Amino acid sequence: MARWEPNASQRLADAALELFAERGYENTTVLDIARRAGLAKSTFFRHFRDKREVLFGEDALTERLTTAIAAAPAEAAPLEAVACALDALGRDVFTPARRAFTVRRRAVIEANPDLQEREALKGVRLTASVARALADRGVPGLVARVAAELGALALEIAYGRWNDQDCTEEFGVIARRALGDVQKAASATRGHPGRSR
Amino acid sequence: MARWEPNASQRLADAALELFAERGYENTTVLDIARRAGLAKSTFFRHFRDKREVLFGEDALTERLTTAIAAAPAEAAPLEAVACALDALGRDVFTPARRAFTVRRRAVIEANPDLQEREALKGVRLTASVARALADRGVPGLVARVAAELGALALEIAYGRWNDQDCTEEFGVIARRALGDVQKAASATRGHPGRSR
Repeated sequence: MARWEPNASQRLADAALELFAERGYENTTVLDIARRAGLAKSTFFRHFRDKREVLFGEDALTERLTTAIAAAPAEAAPLEAVACALDALGRDVFTPARRAFTVRRRAVIEANPDLQEREALKGVRLTASVARALADRGVPGLVARVAAELGALALEIAYGRWNDQDCTEEFGVIARRALGDVQKAASATRGHPGRSR
Repeated sequence: MARWEPNASQRLADAALELFAERGYENTTVLDIARRAGLAKSTFFRHFRDKREVLFGEDALTERLTTAIAAAPAEAAPLEAVACALDALGRDVFTPARRAFTVRRRAVIEANPDLQEREALKGVRLTASVARALADRGVPGLVARVAAELGALALEIAYGRWNDQDCTEEFGVIARRALGDVQKAASATRGHPGRSR
């Protein structure tokens, strides 16, 4: 049995980000990442399926969102349950201490089509998980899917703003505002004429 | 200069689908695909970047959707412009003659995580293109993004139904209905309580 390595997955993710920034994603191997983290290659593969996965592996996001949706007050409307979930992300995942990591992670992903692809798929799966968590609360299937899509859009907008250089607000505050904006925009999709305005 | 090959990209896509179904995606090479289509490997790479792209390369969908949005009546609300675009897909892309191809394509994609990833990324890009086309009509940015997301969800639902074995309806009819359902669901995201109902 391999020995237990404290905090291995975060060490590997940090090492990978450093190397991707230094020499590029294409020029970094799994062995390079493991070495930089001071861990064995086999440890890498216990935590991540492949090189791309090192920036996506934890699924802490999905776990936190779905748990928070399940824990939202029974009388909460679907979008209110989503808002509770975004609050939870701000408390437990997108914390101020985490920001330096996510800013660098984002820059690496934006530079690599391969990673963008994985990010897109993760986004689709995250949205599907949120929709399932809402449906488990008794929300009708299609309403759950739409609420999940609106929540995903708010999350994306909030994540972008939170990663902005000058941002000093907490993630939860930004996310609540983004969700409110998305909600208003959804009402306007039926009524805002185009060029005629 | 290479000679012109009539309808090469569709021939390559058909050949790829056949081979993926026969021997699996992993066991099919670009050379196999080109040979089955009776074309040179170099012809393949003039049309597609890699093996995955052969099922996604045309972007006929994006082209048709954005053109139709631009051509929608000036007074059309954002979701009405999206509805016009879905109508156009039914007329020009998802035609009855095309259905046998899309049904097989869908089965191959569902069997391959690699292809699902590409499909997810294409979906994200398609939605972004639709949002840009709406913004070009003067729709405010966030309203355009929300309308595009709702349209993408309606498209996904309609595409699934249209590919169902027993479906005899036209794509445009299914898509209009799906968009109406999505619209109603969007209104319900603020009001449908969960377990308490």
